[in-house]
Formats: sequence, C-alpha cells, structure tokens
Amino acid sequence: MSSLNSKTDDNLEAMRHSSSHIMAQAVLELFPDAKLGIGPAIEDGFYYDFELPRSLIPEDLSVITEKMNAIIGQDLPFERSEITKDAARRLFASQSFKLELIDELPGNTVSLYRQGGFTDLCKGPHVSSTGQVKAFKLLSIAGAYWRGSEKRPMLQRVYGVAFHTSQELSDHLIQLEEAAKRDHRKLGRELEIFSFDDEIGPGLPLWLPNGAVIIEELEDLAKDLEFRHGYARVRTPHISKEDLFLHSGHLPYYAESMYPPMELEGVRYYIKPMNCPMHHKIYASKPRSYRELPLRLAEYGTCYRYEKSGELFGLMRVRSMQMNDAHIYCTEKQFEQEFMAVIELYLEYFKIFNIREYRMRLSTHAPEGLGKKYIDSPTLWLKTESMVREAMLRHDVPFVEIPDEAAFYGPKIDVQIKSAIGREFTLATNQVDFAQAERFDLEFTGEDGGKERPLIIHRAPLSTHERFVGFLLEHYGGDFPFWLAPVQAVIIPVADRHLEYAGIVEGLLQDKGIRVKLDGRAERMGNKIRQAQAAHIPCMLILGDKEVTDATVSIRLHSGAQANDLTPAAVLEAMMQAVVDKTPDFNL
Amino acid sequence: MSSLNSKTDDNLEAMRHSSSHIMAQAVLELFPDAKLGIGPAIEDGFYYDFELPRSLIPEDLSVITEKMNAIIGQDLPFERSEITKDAARRLFASQSFKLELIDELPGNTVSLYRQGGFTDLCKGPHVSSTGQVKAFKLLSIAGAYWRGSEKRPMLQRVYGVAFHTSQELSDHLIQLEEAAKRDHRKLGRELEIFSFDDEIGPGLPLWLPNGAVIIEELEDLAKDLEFRHGYARVRTPHISKEDLFLHSGHLPYYAESMYPPMELEGVRYYIKPMNCPMHHKIYASKPRSYRELPLRLAEYGTCYRYEKSGELFGLMRVRSMQMNDAHIYCTEKQFEQEFMAVIELYLEYFKIFNIREYRMRLSTHAPEGLGKKYIDSPTLWLKTESMVREAMLRHDVPFVEIPDEAAFYGPKIDVQIKSAIGREFTLATNQVDFAQAERFDLEFTGEDGGKERPLIIHRAPLSTHERFVGFLLEHYGGDFPFWLAPVQAVIIPVADRHLEYAGIVEGLLQDKGIRVKLDGRAERMGNKIRQAQAAHIPCMLILGDKEVTDATVSIRLHSGAQANDLTPAAVLEAMMQAVVDKTPDFNL
Repeated sequence: MSSLNSKTDDNLEAMRHSSSHIMAQAVLELFPDAKLGIGPAIEDGFYYDFELPRSLIPEDLSVITEKMNAIIGQDLPFERSEITKDAARRLFASQSFKLELIDELPGNTVSLYRQGGFTDLCKGPHVSSTGQVKAFKLLSIAGAYWRGSEKRPMLQRVYGVAFHTSQELSDHLIQLEEAAKRDHRKLGRELEIFSFDDEIGPGLPLWLPNGAVIIEELEDLAKDLEFRHGYARVRTPHISKEDLFLHSGHLPYYAESMYPPMELEGVRYYIKPMNCPMHHKIYASKPRSYRELPLRLAEYGTCYRYEKSGELFGLMRVRSMQMNDAHIYCTEKQFEQEFMAVIELYLEYFKIFNIREYRMRLSTHAPEGLGKKYIDSPTLWLKTESMVREAMLRHDVPFVEIPDEAAFYGPKIDVQIKSAIGREFTLATNQVDFAQAERFDLEFTGEDGGKERPLIIHRAPLSTHERFVGFLLEHYGGDFPFWLAPVQAVIIPVADRHLEYAGIVEGLLQDKGIRVKLDGRAERMGNKIRQAQAAHIPCMLILGDKEVTDATVSIRLHSGAQANDLTPAAVLEAMMQAVVDKTPDFNL
Repeated sequence: MSSLNSKTDDNLEAMRHSSSHIMAQAVLELFPDAKLGIGPAIEDGFYYDFELPRSLIPEDLSVITEKMNAIIGQDLPFERSEITKDAARRLFASQSFKLELIDELPGNTVSLYRQGGFTDLCKGPHVSSTGQVKAFKLLSIAGAYWRGSEKRPMLQRVYGVAFHTSQELSDHLIQLEEAAKRDHRKLGRELEIFSFDDEIGPGLPLWLPNGAVIIEELEDLAKDLEFRHGYARVRTPHISKEDLFLHSGHLPYYAESMYPPMELEGVRYYIKPMNCPMHHKIYASKPRSYRELPLRLAEYGTCYRYEKSGELFGLMRVRSMQMNDAHIYCTEKQFEQEFMAVIELYLEYFKIFNIREYRMRLSTHAPEGLGKKYIDSPTLWLKTESMVREAMLRHDVPFVEIPDEAAFYGPKIDVQIKSAIGREFTLATNQVDFAQAERFDLEFTGEDGGKERPLIIHRAPLSTHERFVGFLLEHYGGDFPFWLAPVQAVIIPVADRHLEYAGIVEGLLQDKGIRVKLDGRAERMGNKIRQAQAAHIPCMLILGDKEVTDATVSIRLHSGAQANDLTPAAVLEAMMQAVVDKTPDFNL
C-alpha cells in the first residue's frame, strides 16, 4: 500500500538520485577499480551497489562522506548526453555490470549523466549541480546480489538518506532512532512479551506472561464490545477433514498457503487457514429463521498459514495467528446497518487505542470483470457498493474509492492505520460476501415462509493478536496505557521496615485485580525506580516512614507526574477507574 | 477406576449370575436350538450371549421375562456338580461355544450348575434356588462378537438388571431414566451447547454460542482464581517441530496417541498432544533465579490426541481438548505449600460447582520398581510422598493411598468426582515431576549462587473444557446456576403494549453484562413461559400492565420461586451479586 501522505516531489527524488551519483564518484576516488552496479533513489534516500576489492567497514562511511562533501562543495553541474550503445560499450569497457545493462536497454542509444570526472549510465533526471545536495547522511552497508539473484555476484550496497534541509534530515534521523527503539522485536524481547524457540519452529510465537496479559486484555475488550454489539461467541476446532476445505474452495485454490495434511484412518486433516467455513457450519447447524438474523458469530480463532521461513518477520508475518474474527449473517434489508455498525466498531477501537490517523479504502468492482473476476450479480454489486459508499459519507468516515479491487464475492473496506511513530499497518478488512452462502447452502426462512440466502459480512477490527500486539508495541513504544500494561504498578518500600505495610497495600490492589508487584529486594530505592522506569511500568508506589505512619502512599508515574499523601483506597479507585475507562493513565 | 462406594456384596453378585442362568433357561424354552455363549454378572445386573435362529425384538423381552418368572416361581435349587472334560464334551455336544470353553479350561474336570432341566458350564457361585431372585428387569438387546473378536460370529446379548428388593430395582430404573435425560449428548443437543459436523470430523466439537458462554465463564473463573493464586498466564502454539517432542520424549513413545506429522520445508511438524514442553520452553526462555520461584504458568491450552473413531464418545472422548493446564516450577522447600495450594484450589472449585462427593487417590512408588518403572531417586520419592501424605492428612483431605501406581517421575493425586446423579468422572491429576526439569535442562540460580533444578507440578483442576462441560451438563441436568447459564433471563411482555418497557428493562440488564433475551413474539404468555422453562433459563421476567404502570417487574425462577413488585434495579443488583458469588440462584 502507498504512503498515507504520499506527495510527489520530483525534485526531492532527483536530488536523492544525484546523491547516489556523488557517492559513486566518491567511492571511485577511494577504489579506482570499483565495479558499479546501480544507484537509484529510494524512499527517504538512495543507495549504490559496488563490487570492491575489500569489504567496507562502518568507518569507511565517514571517509566517503568527506569526499562527497568535497564534490558537493565544488558545485559541479550534472550534464546529460546521449551516445550510441557501441560508444557506451567502449566508455564502460571495464564496467562489466554496466555493459550488461547497456545490452538490455532498448534502442540504439543510451543516455549518460556526468558530474566532474564521473560519468554514469543513467536516464535521469538529476538536479542541476552537486551543490543542490544540502543534507544527506550515509547510514549503512549491506550485501546485495547483482540483479537480486543468488546466482550472481554479491555486491556491497551503501544506503544513505537525503533531504532538502538539515532540519528535515535531523528530524528523520531522530525518527529512525525512535523507530529502532520502538521496533516490536526489540521491545518484545526487552519487555518479555513474546519469544521464539528453535525447537518449536519459526513463525510460531510463544506468548510470555507479559504478552499473555496484553492479548487477554484485548480479548476481554473484544468480548465486552462484541457483547454490547449483539455478537454471539463460538469456538471452533483448529483442524478439519479436507472435505470442509474442498467444500469452501480453499482446496485446491489456497493450498499453497496451507499446511500440508495429516492422514488419519485414511482421511486427510488440515489445520485451518481461516475460520469462515467453521462459522458457516455453525450457522448451518440448525434451520434458521429471519427472526434469528442478524446472527453475528464471533471468535478469536486461530488460523495457520504457510509463509516461507525467509518471509517471516517478528510478529508481523507469522505462521499461526489468532484472529479477532466474526461473521455476520443478515438479510439484505439489514445489511447497511450491520456494515456501518462494523465501521463504527472500528472507530470505537481507534478511539480506545488513540489511533488518530487511519484510512479506509472502499474497493469496488469493475463492470467488465463481471462473471470473471467478480460474481455476476450486477444489481447486487451496485446496490451494496452504493449502500456502503453512502453510509460512509453519511457517517463522515473518510475513505478513498478504488475501482476494480473488490473481492470476488463483494465490495470491501480495507483499513490502514498509522502508529504514533508514523509506521503504517494494514489492519484488517470489512468484506461483503455474496458467494459463500450459496456454496454452503446457507439459508433462512423469510417472513413469507420462503427460503432465502443470507448476506455475509467478514470482519476483524483488531486484526490478529500477533499483528496487533506488534503494532501496539511500536505505537506505544512500550508505554502501554494503564489498563493494558502487563505490570501496572510496582510497590517500592524504602527500607525493610516498610515491607509489612507494602504487603498490605499490595494485597489491597491485587484483590481488585490490579497487576502489582512488590519489589522487596535489598536494593537502593533509586535503582528500583530506574529499573521500574526501564521496564515501562506505569506506576510506582513509594512507601517510607512517612507513608507508614500516615497510612498513605506516594506515587510516581512513568510519565513523570508525582503525588504524595494519597490514601491507598483513593489510589485503588483511580486505578480501577482507569481500567474501566481505558485511559492512558489515571488521575491523581 | 472402581466405584466410589464399592462394597463387596457377594450374594448380590451370585444372585445376578443366577438370573443370567434363569434367562438362558427361558431362552432355550423359546428357542430349543439356541447356542449359548457366556452369561456373567456385571455391575447392576447380568447378560447372556446367544446365537439364535432369528433376531430378537424388544417384545421378546417380556416373553422371556414371563418364562423367567415361571422358573423363579418354581424355586428350583441350583445344584453344583463336577465331571470330566470328556463327559462335559458329550453333554454339550450341540453347544459349539461351550465346547470351545471346555477345551480352554485348565485341568481335567469342569464344574456344572443345574437348575431344573437346564445345565450350564459354570464355576459359580450361585444362590441356593431360583426363588432367591426377587427383583429383575430385562433392559436391552445388543450385538456382541463371540470372544469380542470381529472375526468370530456375532451373537445377541440380552442385558438385565437385578437387585435384592423391588424398591432397589425401581430406584435404579428411575436413576437410569434420569441419567438418560441428563445424558450430556442429549442435553448438549437440546440446549445447543455443542455439535459435531461430518465435514469437520469426529471428535472435533463445534462450540455453539450457548456452549461458548459456558466455556468462557469457566475460563474467566480460572483466570480469576489463578490470578489470586499467583499464576502467570501464557499462550503457546498448537504446533511444533518434531524436535520438541523428541526432546520431551513424546516421540516415539507417545506417537500412537499423536496426530501424524505435517512436513514443511523438509521439517516435520506435529500438533501438540500436551502443553508441558511448551511451558518448559517458556521457563527456559531466560535465566531464572530462586527469587522468581515458584513460577506458576497457566494456560487453557488445546491438545490433540488420536483416539480411534470407534472410541470417541460425546464430549468425554474427543480428539481435541482444551485443558485447564498449569505447571508450577518450585524449589524443594516450596514444594509442600505449592502442592497443597493446588489441592486447595481443587476444593475451591468443588465448592463452587457443588461437588460434594469426591475422592483423591495418592499413587506412590514401589521400591522394587526404582530404576525401572520409577526414576531412581529413593530419597526424593520417600520425601515427596511423605510431604504429600502428611499435608493431605493435616488438611483433612480424604484420600486413599495406592502403592505402585505413581507416574514414572513422581507421586500423583488422582481426583475422581461424582455428579449430582451419581455418575463418576475422573477429573484430573495433580502430579509431581522430578524428571522433565532434567530432560529440558531447566535450572535456576539458588541462594548460594549454584545451579539447581526446579521441581515441577502438573495440574488441571477443571480438566478439559470438553470433559468438564460434559460433566456439568449431567451434573446440573441442564439447570446451570445463574452465573453459568448461557441465557440468564428471558423477558416476557404480556402483550405488545408492554414491549417498549420490556426493551428498557432488557437494556438495563444487558448494559451490566446480564445475558438476557426479550421474547417479543406474538405468542401466548403461557407458551413463552413453558418454552423458557424447557430451555432451562433460570429467570423469567414477566411484564404486564401493572408492571409498566408501577415500573416494576414480576419474576418467576426456573426453580419455581416467584416474586412481584420488584424494581428493575433491585433485580439487577441481585443478579449481579449472584454472578459474583457464583450462587445457583439469586435471592429475591
């Protein structure tokens, strides 16, 4: 998906591209025998691939940077020229990678760009002169196969970022640093949220106690909101005979993303890639009447998908995922209200999680695809699309409309959100389904006694535990709001003589379900506070002589706020209120 | 396991055995060419296997009963005799099954029992005469292979029950009838708790919305109690590389009970038969100190075991089961307290579920099995056994001790409970484990800085969802206590003009999480009440003119109690209190 705020800034891209040429010139000054690969502009910067007589080390980057700055200081003009391929072959006779590129380019001529003594095969565009590059930084060195093929030589790729101004550059570098700190894999390890184990296998996370707290809070939240929205909960097996997936069409069409079968008593069983067919079976478990509709079946169901081990990524791409799934079976008349209730549920969640930037994409059909890419019910398409479109407008929900990207069985809303640090996540989709009711012969007795097919809405606002917790880790940078924090409060007695009172306060909080830890170690108070702070624990209760005498507590929040002379009961009440209200912190 | 109240009543068994001979005599009168199999006494009664010229029909049972009563009326003496095998072969020349038995019996003589003109090969004992049979009833006819082998002829087995007195017989028949009504498969279907689907496969239950409510209430209960008992919750994958199960020893030793592997990228994956190895991996996910112990890791984890399809039985024997599992890692010093805390947790649950009859069996080792059946640590055995034994005595927990039945790795407590209708269930075990810490190289840094191995306690007080919900269905006969009932209250407006008020009351209750349904159908009130009663809904709120005018509600409980003129707020409060207190009903 494209950036939420994608602006075309051709000049910026040209400047980044020019930076890569300047880098290549600098590298050639250092290593005259270097063979050059390619050097494009990329998001936020640029790279260039080199074959060099030795491996680069991080210290080389400052040497290259110095040489680049000298070239920039000379303000050399970028000059374009066009020559025949034969002439180009002579010019790049010692550059084997360039020769390969020349052979593959169409036409008889190629274009070149030159600054100072450096000439590159390039179609441009570039800025007018090297002096236009005002703010860049070389970031890293990585290995990259020539043409991305494992069978070709491994080159050394140098990455850099470049911006119009030093301010923008330094903002970006701060953001990068922040993002690295917030990387969910790093935070997940530091905060003991999840881990992987070689003997269990890649892509199969173990949720450690702190992670289990978060996912169970998410489940409780979903359970509560779904109860209020009239959902019924179900639980379905994780495995099934292949019959079910033949019936649903997952086999053979989706087989590549499924785990291989297990054969038992001559029958093939699969672990489920999706929950839908199981929910359809529950719908079909008894005859249904229009009076039972809408029937909303919800389950935090676990699905299993085969991803190549090379494509697995932390919690974001895994092989087992527990999904905040639900299927709504409704009449055509009920459809609009049900669909919008789902959108409202998304918005409710966004508010709870302080997700302020989100975008919804309405994917619609294209008439020329009817009967091919799309189920052939033109009226139903137009009707549901317009229902969705108008309802979204009426409810003032921002969305963009993308024609010809609907699912086979109906229009859908894709939801994309941006975390607090600007990282984008595709959260989930809200899909209309005209097709599966037919496939599973799902029906209900209508008001007139005739049999009708329900419409089905697939939805998963909280995505999967894996992806959503990964998102939340980066979104909050580990500073979970009070209700979600794995450990909500730590009690720090100043000395051993305060331990007894600390135990009483601990019991008081624990009894009401507050996740509290008593740090009774023989450590200095300052150390305990620093450690609790590093562990992102939202609240520290500090108990010394004064607190014991007055039967009060002193509080220090992770956010920095402090307060003294509070009664334990008042603190408990504030905490419980914060849990109910799902506020980031609690009011002292 | 043996009956909770197993009393030896030799005379009762002899009488039941004699009843089977009387039945055989009666059947031979009806079918002189009948071939006789065997006819033993069994629990509550007896059976006899016959090869007959035609299939028996239920009406035959009363004919046989009549003939049996005639034989009983004659008060024929049972006479024992002993003859040589050769003589017996001549006597039973036309009874091929008996000839086979004679061949297999040891020694040169066999014993016979005769009443009137009927003689059977039999080692007794019997009552003195047929008149001793005072109260019997033939119950059913079933097919049974001779010697239990599919390769031998299928015989017809007639089952009967027999007791000393007619009163005992009629009590038993009432109990049977009651048990049939409470059969969890029957109630599970009627109350829409679970279902099976052919396309999904046998032994893989779908939890329907009503069943999901119950299992989620059980999970909430466990979560709450385990939080109070200092457990940390975790979540672990359902699948793993075979490496884990090779390490744990499940492969190859337990392979027969496991699903076959799935092969992915050349690696074999299994769905887990137990949660233990996963929890051990979480223990091992970081270095542990004695300060962190006891570490109690809890998970309602799903396990998969292969049971032959012929052995599956409702929710009692299934192929996927979600277990109220936990593993406690502790020091030797902490062991006693931890073990007893688990026993106390069992007792806490028994109280909540009104389980009054339970028995705990302490299984200990036998010294001669050390190093063979039992891990070779004689001191640790004696120590932990005596710790368990003495702690149980001190806490006044009734138990029996069974030597030479411990697990390989330590003593265990098996818990057996009896439902309200007298059906027995093996609930779960509480096991001590000396072995797996070694196998998984689990350790902690002791107070002196040295490495030590933790002891491990395996426990599952609420068993699996499948078995426990099956038990609860039969235990409560469908009349779930208020807090567990899938639908807690139904609102019945007397007429359409009371619908608006009914909606207000519904919203009030729903807002506080009460599972309430509004029965707004155009049905007569009496029908609605009868249907709610049949659906075992604990509470009916009936709203008519008077209630609307006074803003009150009238209540009718499933138990029969009634009350009028209550404010909706008072009813709500009573309901919420019943949910918190987990009482069967609520106080009006």
